Amino acid sequence: MLSRDQLDRIAIVLVRARNPNNIGAVARAMHDFGFRDLRLVNEFTVPLEAARSAVDASAVLNAASEFPTVAAAVADCTLVFGTTAVGERELQHPLATLAEAAGTIVRELGRERGREPGSELDRQADGSGAAGRVALLFGSEKTGLSNDELSHCDALLTIPMHVYEDQRHPSMNLGQAVAVCLYELVREREIRHVGRGAAKADAATLERLTKLWEETLAESEYTRHHPANTDAADVRRLVHRMQVEATDAPVWLGILRQILWKLRANRSNEIDH
Amino acid sequence: MLSRDQLDRIAIVLVRARNPNNIGAVARAMHDFGFRDLRLVNEFTVPLEAARSAVDASAVLNAASEFPTVAAAVADCTLVFGTTAVGERELQHPLATLAEAAGTIVRELGRERGREPGSELDRQADGSGAAGRVALLFGSEKTGLSNDELSHCDALLTIPMHVYEDQRHPSMNLGQAVAVCLYELVREREIRHVGRGAAKADAATLERLTKLWEETLAESEYTRHHPANTDAADVRRLVHRMQVEATDAPVWLGILRQILWKLRANRSNEIDH
Repeated sequence: MLSRDQLDRIAIVLVRARNPNNIGAVARAMHDFGFRDLRLVNEFTVPLEAARSAVDASAVLNAASEFPTVAAAVADCTLVFGTTAVGERELQHPLATLAEAAGTIVRELGRERGREPGSELDRQADGSGAAGRVALLFGSEKTGLSNDELSHCDALLTIPMHVYEDQRHPSMNLGQAVAVCLYELVREREIRHVGRGAAKADAATLERLTKLWEETLAESEYTRHHPANTDAADVRRLVHRMQVEATDAPVWLGILRQILWKLRANRSNEIDH
Repeated sequence: MLSRDQLDRIAIVLVRARNPNNIGAVARAMHDFGFRDLRLVNEFTVPLEAARSAVDASAVLNAASEFPTVAAAVADCTLVFGTTAVGERELQHPLATLAEAAGTIVRELGRERGREPGSELDRQADGSGAAGRVALLFGSEKTGLSNDELSHCDALLTIPMHVYEDQRHPSMNLGQAVAVCLYELVREREIRHVGRGAAKADAATLERLTKLWEETLAESEYTRHHPANTDAADVRRLVHRMQVEATDAPVWLGILRQILWKLRANRSNEIDH
């Protein structure tokens, strides 16, 4: 997880984005993942009012800053990544996948952790020179980033997309591309081994369930019809494969007791007559 | 990387999506990451013509299939994940982060690799029990998935989003949410151990099991004694949590039919007297 401070040290820079809907979609994705620093590079002012219709986008849009050039927009950043669709042009930069780039970016944001209390960096008044600050550049949907714009980048990153045989330039919707990049940045880095989260019933409970199933199968005459797969071990394996969760165990026990009771009540009823 | 065959065994299921722009954005994200199986669950037909304006979306949209119910849409799937914003409602399912869920899904897709040539499963004519097929359900942007719709899911996944202090329900733009999920699926990951674990029963089989359990609970009068936790959705969730393996499914179906038969035979016997 990135801290509030780290989230605020990542700037999303949209270069020549003109469609207010796209800008609004980017702002919404930023809001969703907790980012706040949106920077727009345009020769002309974009009417952001139209973009504010995007749900949850307004806080980010209201704080957006505008710059006339890429150089001005990334001036305070210590690491600048340009985004590109591979094959779009001859690459003259190191190219990383998004996942690789995210590792580099998170390391850059963590730089200030190395500071010793009372160190030179710590004593700087505003602290801006101490902590890494990262810019992520996105070009226009139509043309991507120009070579000149790319020249402001330390490295490029690409979102791995599917390669079709008759591929023209691959491209992603701007809002989706930003959402994917931001997700990768906040994504947990190490993944725990996936298991179902819920606590499993203990073996003693499974054994009680097994006994109840044995009785139920016998009482319903399933055992008589299928003697080959209903010995005690068969039934136990079947029950264990159910992977009963601890909170479900009382429910299953109750169900089986009720079924058994009903089967027996009916039978004794039958016998009585 | 997922193979062509694996990409085609993941279905994106949009439940009650009505905005053609959103559907188009989803189709474009699917195209970008190489997915093709789009399924729409709606009571009314959605005018997809309007959605086709999204760049690169048309091939996916042309192949989209429509279903009247969630049950029908996921009938052939062996693993069904619902997507949810955490805190949206009280969760009655195992909840995984997107990254955790992706590991589970990739393992499910890799299952058929574990088949021994000439094995029982390999010899099945249609192979449907052999290879895992996964559904990813997305609800409407406004309301998400209902409890009844969620009851068709084996587990839930959530995209980790930023938590604001004054948070209402967090929500993501549908196209962005799908893009993020698909990215996570195709994202490079450390080679996991795939091909272990038995094939799971498909959703249609689980639905048959659910119906039989409903009848059995009613017939045994469990339902009458415990009306609070035996509505259709409760029973379906209980059955899904059993994680029934494909080879066990006929056994469970046989057991329940026998119990039902016995309960009814006893009852009619009783009535006869």
